Amino acid sequence: MKDYIKIHPWQIVEEGFHRENAKVSESIFSIGNGRMGQRANFEEKYSGASLQGSYLAGVYYPDKTRVGWWKNGYPEYFAKVLNSVSWNNVHISVDGELIDLNVQEPINFKRVLDMQNGLLIRSYSVVTAKGITLDFEWTRFVSMNRKNIGVVSLSLKASADCRISIRSVLSGDIHNQDSNYDEFFWQDTISGVEGSHLWLRQKTKKTNFSVAASSLHNISLDNNNYTSALSNTDLQSAAKFDFHLLPNKSVRFQKYSAICSSMYEEESQLQSTAHNEARAAYEAGVDVLVEEQKKAWSDIWHNCDVEIDGDDEAQQSIRFNIFQLFQTYTGDDSRLNIGPKGFTGEKYGGSTYWDTEAYCLPFYLATAPNDVARNLLVYRYNQLDKAIENAQKLGFNKGAALYPMVTMNGEECHNEWEITFEEIHRNGAIAYAVYDYINYTGDTAYMAEYGLEVLIGISRFWSQRVHFSEDKQQWVMLGVTGPNEFENNVNNNWYTNKFAVWCLNYTRDQIQILQKENPKRFAEIATKTAFEESEIQHWNQITQNMYFPHDAKRDIFLQQDGFLDKELIPVSQLSSDQRPIVEHWSWDRILRSCYIKQADVLQGFYFFEDEFDLETHKRHFDFYEPLTVHESSLSPCIHSILANKIGNYDKAYEFYLRTARLDLNDINNDTCDGCHITSMAGTWMTISKGFAGMRVRNGRLHLSPHIPNNWKTIRFNIRFRENYLRISIGNDQLEVQNIEGPKITMNCKGVDFQVDSTQTKSINYA
Amino acid sequence: MKDYIKIHPWQIVEEGFHRENAKVSESIFSIGNGRMGQRANFEEKYSGASLQGSYLAGVYYPDKTRVGWWKNGYPEYFAKVLNSVSWNNVHISVDGELIDLNVQEPINFKRVLDMQNGLLIRSYSVVTAKGITLDFEWTRFVSMNRKNIGVVSLSLKASADCRISIRSVLSGDIHNQDSNYDEFFWQDTISGVEGSHLWLRQKTKKTNFSVAASSLHNISLDNNNYTSALSNTDLQSAAKFDFHLLPNKSVRFQKYSAICSSMYEEESQLQSTAHNEARAAYEAGVDVLVEEQKKAWSDIWHNCDVEIDGDDEAQQSIRFNIFQLFQTYTGDDSRLNIGPKGFTGEKYGGSTYWDTEAYCLPFYLATAPNDVARNLLVYRYNQLDKAIENAQKLGFNKGAALYPMVTMNGEECHNEWEITFEEIHRNGAIAYAVYDYINYTGDTAYMAEYGLEVLIGISRFWSQRVHFSEDKQQWVMLGVTGPNEFENNVNNNWYTNKFAVWCLNYTRDQIQILQKENPKRFAEIATKTAFEESEIQHWNQITQNMYFPHDAKRDIFLQQDGFLDKELIPVSQLSSDQRPIVEHWSWDRILRSCYIKQADVLQGFYFFEDEFDLETHKRHFDFYEPLTVHESSLSPCIHSILANKIGNYDKAYEFYLRTARLDLNDINNDTCDGCHITSMAGTWMTISKGFAGMRVRNGRLHLSPHIPNNWKTIRFNIRFRENYLRISIGNDQLEVQNIEGPKITMNCKGVDFQVDSTQTKSINYA
Repeated sequence: MKDYIKIHPWQIVEEGFHRENAKVSESIFSIGNGRMGQRANFEEKYSGASLQGSYLAGVYYPDKTRVGWWKNGYPEYFAKVLNSVSWNNVHISVDGELIDLNVQEPINFKRVLDMQNGLLIRSYSVVTAKGITLDFEWTRFVSMNRKNIGVVSLSLKASADCRISIRSVLSGDIHNQDSNYDEFFWQDTISGVEGSHLWLRQKTKKTNFSVAASSLHNISLDNNNYTSALSNTDLQSAAKFDFHLLPNKSVRFQKYSAICSSMYEEESQLQSTAHNEARAAYEAGVDVLVEEQKKAWSDIWHNCDVEIDGDDEAQQSIRFNIFQLFQTYTGDDSRLNIGPKGFTGEKYGGSTYWDTEAYCLPFYLATAPNDVARNLLVYRYNQLDKAIENAQKLGFNKGAALYPMVTMNGEECHNEWEITFEEIHRNGAIAYAVYDYINYTGDTAYMAEYGLEVLIGISRFWSQRVHFSEDKQQWVMLGVTGPNEFENNVNNNWYTNKFAVWCLNYTRDQIQILQKENPKRFAEIATKTAFEESEIQHWNQITQNMYFPHDAKRDIFLQQDGFLDKELIPVSQLSSDQRPIVEHWSWDRILRSCYIKQADVLQGFYFFEDEFDLETHKRHFDFYEPLTVHESSLSPCIHSILANKIGNYDKAYEFYLRTARLDLNDINNDTCDGCHITSMAGTWMTISKGFAGMRVRNGRLHLSPHIPNNWKTIRFNIRFRENYLRISIGNDQLEVQNIEGPKITMNCKGVDFQVDSTQTKSINYA
Repeated sequence: MKDYIKIHPWQIVEEGFHRENAKVSESIFSIGNGRMGQRANFEEKYSGASLQGSYLAGVYYPDKTRVGWWKNGYPEYFAKVLNSVSWNNVHISVDGELIDLNVQEPINFKRVLDMQNGLLIRSYSVVTAKGITLDFEWTRFVSMNRKNIGVVSLSLKASADCRISIRSVLSGDIHNQDSNYDEFFWQDTISGVEGSHLWLRQKTKKTNFSVAASSLHNISLDNNNYTSALSNTDLQSAAKFDFHLLPNKSVRFQKYSAICSSMYEEESQLQSTAHNEARAAYEAGVDVLVEEQKKAWSDIWHNCDVEIDGDDEAQQSIRFNIFQLFQTYTGDDSRLNIGPKGFTGEKYGGSTYWDTEAYCLPFYLATAPNDVARNLLVYRYNQLDKAIENAQKLGFNKGAALYPMVTMNGEECHNEWEITFEEIHRNGAIAYAVYDYINYTGDTAYMAEYGLEVLIGISRFWSQRVHFSEDKQQWVMLGVTGPNEFENNVNNNWYTNKFAVWCLNYTRDQIQILQKENPKRFAEIATKTAFEESEIQHWNQITQNMYFPHDAKRDIFLQQDGFLDKELIPVSQLSSDQRPIVEHWSWDRILRSCYIKQADVLQGFYFFEDEFDLETHKRHFDFYEPLTVHESSLSPCIHSILANKIGNYDKAYEFYLRTARLDLNDINNDTCDGCHITSMAGTWMTISKGFAGMRVRNGRLHLSPHIPNNWKTIRFNIRFRENYLRISIGNDQLEVQNIEGPKITMNCKGVDFQVDSTQTKSINYA
């Protein structure tokens, strides 16, 4: 838990340089535009602890997996998001002294992530060995409009005449710190200078993604008297500018970099595109680009801002979460997905996890055009063949599909068999996303077009993965890991069993609907998937007699078989020096303990809430939450939503802050590795599904608001089908503004109400 | 399953070169002397598939572990037995043509491992490109008397005048194929020539073991007309001999190599010792050394031979097992232990597993002086502090000891958390070895001197590792892996629970005996271990109310909780193209299947047989064996012994051949990695404990013979306390010769009998 970030409704602010948190800050102050991202590594030299990171969407490397002894079915590689061309280095020397904030102590250091405008601004002064004071102000951004453009702008002033040397570099000498075998992932690097351009080109090994970068510079000096020189070596190209800086005169310096990848450009055009785009940015100039940036972010905020009156801490943190989400994924490319760290770090390889469906989808459903969420679903549809192949590798057949737990291209790609093999519950979340999308958008055509094939593949998997226990005379599922990754290889994880049954029933229902409503299309799907009617009979046998572990005494569903054999000691009785247990306990001790990393049974209640009454919710929350250590970023948000539902408002607020400020306060002590991007969507859900109590039932938007006592109002905009709505919730007032779309019927706490087009309706909900 | 090794009672014979089995043969034809070992890599160049291996006892490297994501308590390194100086290379060129059996096709190739005399002999002819036929005969051995000496002897004849060049090399350019990160494990290699010596010295990285080698050569030519030259490069030294070989005249060439390590010599003396020992061997000459070798092996066989009349296949295989065991471990150094592959391969790192106590100890108890077995126990006593430290790392306290599953020096050292963390049952086998040793030898002083401290540490571990289940109102043990490594992280493994209770009770009893019989010594131990009387009360609470999974319907102890939920389909119904399942099934499928890799519940019956009647044995054997795939080398021997016990003699014989010929027939398709040394002791047990039915009860030797129908007689010698006995078992006759020692009372099938000193007694047991 750290507390050095200043509270501000629109800004993330660091005052004074917190060297001890340098890597945490690098993550928090990351910038991105959905296509590329950059950790907040300093432009100037920094010799202290740092995790260098420049990432390009979709450009990955299949790093050979690292396992003790390889076993059949283990993934062959762990896909790694690649640390790519380093484009932001601008080293500064003053009278031969290299500026390095690990050497010179900065004065009045201030770093601001201006979320409203998408800019990173950093200012400080240093005093050189000769006693000259230099005032730096750096501005950096990656353009939301020009997806390949990153800009660095420097304003520098000196207290006395001094000789300045600026050395700007494009470097291909870049490594992933999480490389399994310390391998260099790039090849064929060539660099050069051409006219006033620096350029550099390289390719990934194995995957053959090509990247080309080009930089142009602008320098404005009072007397315009400087010398410049361009040079290049094998792995980098550099531009050097030397000049005298007169006392209290500023130099302004800009670096315009274009970084293009073969994900988006023809390889033969890559370098020329980079040149042209760098040139265009250079010619537009920083002021124009900043204006574009402000406009782009203004548009985003207009759609998706959440305003919280009365609590700047809560306000800052929800905006931070939303800001990072839109820096990571803009939804215009169905080949892309949302890595757990986005563009803010290497950990988890930048791959796609079930987080996307379970956490991110609801956010994009409500805040972006349908296409964005739809693209996330199509991503999985496009990988259905790979999911079938993956299941075949593991011994399944007849079109059973097991989606990977971790993937870049549809193939399973991770080091950890506990995750990749046994967390088969991801198949459930991926099926649920189809339901969720259609339920929210009403886009029922999606089912016939894409959804049903995915559902059939997934249901076939479940029907083969369970078997009939002669002993129990029920269907069981052995050897799984639930969402709670502090268990491994357990039998009858309730959540997974529950999801299997739900998938089988939902698929059956959807098949029967399509058979009736569009028999021609169904016949096509049945032919393509070789579907047989008898499969449904088999599914029904399973769903009608599935085993769910249950404790009759407490009337509680058990996380898995044998859960009650554990020593059930509440987390509150653990001394704080044991927390987080993942840092203090050995892995085997964690495994046999009762402690729950993240919602597991409760994750099932979150998804299937309408199957259980409020008392049942309370009973389960009161049993499981006290045993939960929330050492996954995905845990607090779900608990906040559930706590709201059962009226445990203090907990709901506590968990809200925990999820919203997870990175800003480095609560899990791992933000140095990158921000927890996917859980940020969960933060947004604590507002919409939690405090606003938003649900879609039978095509109608329901609200059940309750906001924390110290909040005056929350306001947010959502898209819902044909409507664009502004929801404002005070302590007892709900106000719905129907900004766009026809008259809409909604429901507040069980009571329907209507809002006419362009009108606003107020309701006292207390 | 391979079948290319010829049957011979005293020899392992390969006729015709089986290139496709080259690496299997390299393992099978390995030679060793307990201090060093050498795979059967050819002396001459061989460009085909090969696993080079020259190993020195106790010289290891801590290779950084390879795990996906490191978790607390994971071992930091995987100890590797090191491929060390390559001392046996003797490359031959004929008229400039390099002899390479992957290039020239050998004629009349024959390779013989002469087990009676400890010699490896290989002969063949090749025809050169010029049409000259060359007849080679190579002899190789590592001396049982001169532990640092390896000898290569060549006799070579040509059909026509030709120019021969012999190039003999000492090479330090050696790599472990199983290196986790392709690291070179050696440093500071220097080589040179001095007089007629080749020498080479190098050190292991990190562990700083030093090794020095020295070679001398002798060449005998008809005309004694040759030129020789010595040279060296960074990583090797070489001697070259050039001469004309006249038609049908032989050249005889010998290479005498001494390889010394800092395990046994002062580092400052290492090179001079190597020189001196090589010189002494050279001066003695190959004929004398061979005579020494024959004598040494004759002495070993005199003590430990098992003769099987009427079944040469069975005869060959039991001798092969015994031969390899004595090549691996001679018991004169309590720092050493028995790696699963001995000196025949790298796999399993050459480290110590529970195999030593559970499988090897009984062999050395009966076939070698007490000191040998005692040294194996003292090895663990000396590592008690490390075992306590290991337990502390995992969160245990108060002197609880968890011995490592895999170790070189007492520290846990493996890649596989499933093994290292959860197979805590090894602690049971290590405690049982104390019982086994004292029960066999009657050396009760061992308990006071060493044994009890180990038992207290182990019992403390069990008492902390179990906990009281409120749900069951019994003590349980969660999150373990039993001997069946096709399960992971199960609850209440019957075998482990059983062993925990046995350890606690045995320790309690031994404490109470020592308190009575030697209160002074007990007080010392109690002080040293901070033992408190209340611990026993706690142990009694556990042992009196421990939970054992049990199926009332079948009256069967269950391997673990939930075992009956599995699909129980006998192995016999698996199609052969699915076997071995470890090669054909994905790991998760294996985990949730019912298939048992090696005895688990039945391993408990093996150890604790006297607690269960014969019917109970049969019931459990008939339930578990049909579900067992025996894909561990440690499985068939235990099943053979149990099958004998319950009168299932066909199975007993089938399992005997499977254990005895595991490597000779490459049954598990992995002998290429090395021979299964530790299971070879299990083979010996199938004779002694199985067919002879040998047990020690209340200090008396019991026999309960039954030999396979096609065997006429088995004969073997054993040491038992003061006696040295020769046991001969025919189809209905038991004969005991009391070779040495006083009159002895024994028991055959429940009937006592006596054998006077030096006399022989015959009994009809049928």
